[in-house]
Amino acid sequence: AERIFVGKRTGLHEVPQDQITNIIIEKAKEGGKVVRLKGGDPFIFGRGGEEAEALVAEGIEFEIVPGVSSSVAAPMYAGIPLTHRDYAASVAIITGHRAGDAEKPVDWVKIANAVDTMVILMGVESLEGIVSKLLAGGINPQKPVAMIESGTLPQQRTLIATLGTIVAEAQKQQIKPPSVILIGEVATLGRKLAWFKQPL
Amino acid sequence: AERIFVGKRTGLHEVPQDQITNIIIEKAKEGGKVVRLKGGDPFIFGRGGEEAEALVAEGIEFEIVPGVSSSVAAPMYAGIPLTHRDYAASVAIITGHRAGDAEKPVDWVKIANAVDTMVILMGVESLEGIVSKLLAGGINPQKPVAMIESGTLPQQRTLIATLGTIVAEAQKQQIKPPSVILIGEVATLGRKLAWFKQPL
Repeated sequence: AERIFVGKRTGLHEVPQDQITNIIIEKAKEGGKVVRLKGGDPFIFGRGGEEAEALVAEGIEFEIVPGVSSSVAAPMYAGIPLTHRDYAASVAIITGHRAGDAEKPVDWVKIANAVDTMVILMGVESLEGIVSKLLAGGINPQKPVAMIESGTLPQQRTLIATLGTIVAEAQKQQIKPPSVILIGEVATLGRKLAWFKQPL
Repeated sequence: AERIFVGKRTGLHEVPQDQITNIIIEKAKEGGKVVRLKGGDPFIFGRGGEEAEALVAEGIEFEIVPGVSSSVAAPMYAGIPLTHRDYAASVAIITGHRAGDAEKPVDWVKIANAVDTMVILMGVESLEGIVSKLLAGGINPQKPVAMIESGTLPQQRTLIATLGTIVAEAQKQQIKPPSVILIGEVATLGRKLAWFKQPL
């Protein structure tokens, strides 16, 4: 089997999405079986929909296998259930990374008012902007927030704070990407249910 | 290994949640290793949070393994990405089954206005009520809706309609639980990207 690396942690430049799609199509047309391997779930901010559209346009048959999104796995490893009978009956998953995607702006305040739990992916760099929008929009500064850095990995760490304190705390603890940000009452369960023991 | 069935498809009466939790604790205290096996993801409407809380209260160590929620898998098998660069930058997952859970009412109209894609689990029986709330709240009756019955199973079938027509269509097609309901522009992609071939 030929192996073509298109991942994000090369330290070199990333392979752009259209180039990835082109490689898949080209290799499929050469007659081989192509496995497009991705971390996470391809249909939750994974651009799997775009890749599937390109395959359909070329008449190439495919199947898709669901994966475990970091939006689910990172909170779980931090002991934070996305829903809970006592605290949360709805969850929204949103990307904090808006670059090149301005046609679909996210209304953070509306989402915060509508659902019990918000899970934000790729949001570390936008944290300050998101939090100030939420506070300016009248969301309670006491609302619990968790940041799970390197979720599920041995070096995972969790910061639990509030909407009012998270920006300063994240700076103090030097929380870095990749981190999942979770806003909502369930975040506090991370104190009680933290089960994943980081190696010393 | 001893095997105790606590699932939902016995045709007999279900094992209530507190009884399941008690069995886990009891068996763990007897000194064995207990595997609590569930379909889907335990932290997305899976009541895993409650089970974890009970274990912590009893001082029983545990770990939790994420699974694939039907909220993700069923739309994927219907060719519907939850997010898509052109159509959807946020997704909400909500339960339509509100029995015994009235402290956390779901504001359907607020959610519909806040996120691009809504995925509703356990909503077949509440479909008419949810749809009429959305329409009364001013949500566009042209908004695409998909219902995926028996998602990922050989007998999977998908109905794609609109908010204005889904109730009548679901009745006509006799859509039954378990079905995942998806509301949002991405639902129409299910026409183009339907890749899962049902056996004839």
